Amino acid sequence: MAAGSDVYVLGGYQTDFARNWTKENKHFSALMRESVLGALETCDIAPEEIESAHVGNFAAELYCMQGHLGAFFTEAHPSFSGLPTGRHEAACASGSIAVLAASAEIEAGRYDLQAVVGIEQMKTVAPDVGGSYLGTAAWYEQEAEGVDFPFPTLFGKLGDEYDKRYGLKDEHLAEISRLNYDNAKLNPNAQTRSWYMNKEHALCRTDDNPAVGGRIRIADCSQVTDGAVCVFLASREYAEKYAKGMGLKLEQIPRIKGWGHNTARMRFADKVAESANDEYVLPHVRSTILSAMKRAGIDDVNGIDAIETHDCFTTSEYMAIDHFGITKPGESWKAVDEGWLEIDGKHPINPSGGLIGAGHPVGATGTRQLLDCYKQVTGTAGDFQVDGAKNCQTLNIGGSGTTSVSFVLGV
Amino acid sequence: MAAGSDVYVLGGYQTDFARNWTKENKHFSALMRESVLGALETCDIAPEEIESAHVGNFAAELYCMQGHLGAFFTEAHPSFSGLPTGRHEAACASGSIAVLAASAEIEAGRYDLQAVVGIEQMKTVAPDVGGSYLGTAAWYEQEAEGVDFPFPTLFGKLGDEYDKRYGLKDEHLAEISRLNYDNAKLNPNAQTRSWYMNKEHALCRTDDNPAVGGRIRIADCSQVTDGAVCVFLASREYAEKYAKGMGLKLEQIPRIKGWGHNTARMRFADKVAESANDEYVLPHVRSTILSAMKRAGIDDVNGIDAIETHDCFTTSEYMAIDHFGITKPGESWKAVDEGWLEIDGKHPINPSGGLIGAGHPVGATGTRQLLDCYKQVTGTAGDFQVDGAKNCQTLNIGGSGTTSVSFVLGV
Repeated sequence: MAAGSDVYVLGGYQTDFARNWTKENKHFSALMRESVLGALETCDIAPEEIESAHVGNFAAELYCMQGHLGAFFTEAHPSFSGLPTGRHEAACASGSIAVLAASAEIEAGRYDLQAVVGIEQMKTVAPDVGGSYLGTAAWYEQEAEGVDFPFPTLFGKLGDEYDKRYGLKDEHLAEISRLNYDNAKLNPNAQTRSWYMNKEHALCRTDDNPAVGGRIRIADCSQVTDGAVCVFLASREYAEKYAKGMGLKLEQIPRIKGWGHNTARMRFADKVAESANDEYVLPHVRSTILSAMKRAGIDDVNGIDAIETHDCFTTSEYMAIDHFGITKPGESWKAVDEGWLEIDGKHPINPSGGLIGAGHPVGATGTRQLLDCYKQVTGTAGDFQVDGAKNCQTLNIGGSGTTSVSFVLGV
Repeated sequence: MAAGSDVYVLGGYQTDFARNWTKENKHFSALMRESVLGALETCDIAPEEIESAHVGNFAAELYCMQGHLGAFFTEAHPSFSGLPTGRHEAACASGSIAVLAASAEIEAGRYDLQAVVGIEQMKTVAPDVGGSYLGTAAWYEQEAEGVDFPFPTLFGKLGDEYDKRYGLKDEHLAEISRLNYDNAKLNPNAQTRSWYMNKEHALCRTDDNPAVGGRIRIADCSQVTDGAVCVFLASREYAEKYAKGMGLKLEQIPRIKGWGHNTARMRFADKVAESANDEYVLPHVRSTILSAMKRAGIDDVNGIDAIETHDCFTTSEYMAIDHFGITKPGESWKAVDEGWLEIDGKHPINPSGGLIGAGHPVGATGTRQLLDCYKQVTGTAGDFQVDGAKNCQTLNIGGSGTTSVSFVLGV
C-alpha cells in the first residue's frame, strides 16, 4: 500500500431516482445492495478487491428508524464481512463528507480501493413529516420547529437577501427550474424525466404552483427522492493496475484534482449578518469553490467545463452562479439570460438535471454529483454529455449554506 | 503543512458524566461548547489554531431532533466560523470513527491541528424510548422492533454463546461489574462515582437487580449518560511546536501508534454463525485489536500497560478479556479470579470505570477512552493512574460486536 496524494475515481452506479422503494416494499439494505452490486458490475471490479467502505447518509434514523449505516455495506456481499466501514453526515452534504473521508484515507496510504455509498430513503413518510425531518439540518429548535416547510422558507430568505442587495426577478428563478427539468429529460436516471414543466408553469403564481415557504414555490424545489449512488475511489497504484486491465492509460482515469470544505454558522440569520459587508452573500461557500479550484491548479471558472451544483431550490443555484464566478456578485441573472448554463452553453450547470430535475436523495447527492462528473469527463454521459468536458466541478451544500464541499474531477 | 504518518494527541476535556443536561435545561450545543472550550483551556491552545473539526455522534436525530452535528462546532467559538467540519457515526463506536477520520486527514497532510468531539445527550427521553433508539444500532426491524431492551438482550446472547462454548458463571460477570464501579469511585468525571455497588449486589437475583434482557441484569449494564469529550489531534510538525511551547520534548507527547478497524455482519445471529468454527466468538473484534497492536509494533497484550475497553455490558468486557489475549479463548474468568484486571494488576482494564462505571454517552465513548489513555500515558490520571503506563489500548464497539475500532496510544 503506497502513500500518495492522488485519488482516482473508477466509476460507479446510480439507482433510478424515479423509484419508490417503500412502494416496492424494500428495505434500506436493498437500496444499498443495488447500488454496490451495480457499481461492481459496471466497473468490472471483483467484490474481494474492496478494502473499506464509507457511507454518506443524512437521517435514516428518522426516515427508516435505522442507524449504524456503514455496517449495512457488509450485508451487500458475503465477501464484505469484516471490512472497515463508517457513516458520515453533514445534512445534504453527507455524500461529499463521505468522499472526503474516503479520499483522506487513500491519501494517507491506509487503503488502495474504497467504496463510497451515498444513500437516502425518504418516501417512507408523508411530505410534511419529511419536511420536519429535513428541518434537523438547520438549528431545529430555533429555525424549524413549528415551521411547515423549514427549508423552502430558509432558501426563500436567500432569495430575499439577493433581492435586497441586488434585485431578483422571479423569471430568472423560473428559468433555472425550466433548465433543470429540461436537462433531466436527457438523463435516464432522473426522477422527473417524464414530468411536465416549462418556464410558464414555473412562473405561474396560482394553486398549480403553490407557495411552500416565502417566495419559494413548488417549481423552485428539489424532489423528495429514494436513491443510492456507489462510487469507487482508488490510489494511484490501484488506478494504474485498473487502467492496464481495462486497456486504458492512467491519464484516462479521472482524478480528484482538488477539493474544498467549509462550514459557516448554523443559523441563516447569522450567516447573513456575517456577510453584510462582503460582496458575496455566502462567503464560505465561495471559499469552498475557490479552494477546490486552487488545489486543482485551475485559475477560475473558465477552466471548468461543466458544474454539478446544489440546486436544492432555484435560489441556491442562483447563488452558485455568481459564487462560482460565472458573473460578478449579484449578476447571476445575466448567465441565465445569455443561455450560458445550457448544456451547449459557455458554463453548463447541472447537465444531469441537478437536485430539481434528477432528484435529491439527501445523503446520495454528493456522490451522485461526483459520478455525473465522472461520466462527463469520460465522455459517457450519453444524451446529457457536455462536448469535450475534461474538468468538472461539484458544489454540495448542507443546511442553509452551512457545510459546503466542492470537488474538481478531471482527466 | 507537512504530510506524515504520525498523529499526536495533545490532550482534551471531558464533561462531568454525572450531569443531566436536560434537567439543567441546556441544549446539545451547550454540551458541545463546554467540551470544546474546556479542552482549549486545559491544553492551552488558542481557538484560532484549530483548523478543522470532526464530531462523533450516534443519534442526536432521535434523542434531540437535531442533525448536521458537525456544524454545531462552529457555534462553540466565534473564530470557528468557516472551519471544515463533519459528523461520523458507527453506533457506539462513533467517537472512534471520528478519530479515524481526523487522523487520516492529518496523515494525508490536510491539516496540522484538529478537534474531535464525541458527544451524546441521552437523558432527553424515558429509558424505554431510549432503549428503542439504541435498537437502531442493531438491524432494527429484525433484532429490535418490539423488543423492550434490544441491546441487553443481544449482549445476553453473547453471554449465552460463551456459556455454550466454554461455560460462563454469573459470579465472573458480577466481579466485572464490581471492578468497574470500584474504579469509577476514583474518577472525578465518572457518572457512578457516588453510587453503591458491590459483588453481592451485582450477583443478587431479586428485584433489587432486575433482569432487563436475557441473562443481563441492571448491574451488568452501562449507563444512560449525557456527555461530551473533546480531544486535539496534531501532526508531528504541530506537536513539535506545541511541545516546545509547553517546555516538553516531542517524545513526551502521546502518539497514536496503531489503529484497527473492522465491521462484522449486522445481525448477532449471523456473527455467531460465521464464528462457529473459530476459537474466538467475535473474530473481527480480535482482528481489530491485533491490527492496532501490529501497527504499533507491539507483539501482544504484555506490551500494553492498560486497556480502556467497551463494557457496554459485563459480557462485552468478558469477551474483550480473551480477545485481547489476556487469557486463552474462553478462559476470561481466570483473569477475573487472579485479579489481573485491577488497577494494580497485571492487565488493568478500565481504570476509568469504563462504560459501566464512568458512563456511556454513546457517541462520546471512543473519544473518552482515548482521553483516558492520554491521561494514563502522561501520568495525569490522578487516583485512577496505572503506575508507569507508557502504552495503552482502547477497544470501542458499535452494535452487537459489529463495528470495532482500537487505538494504541503511547509515549
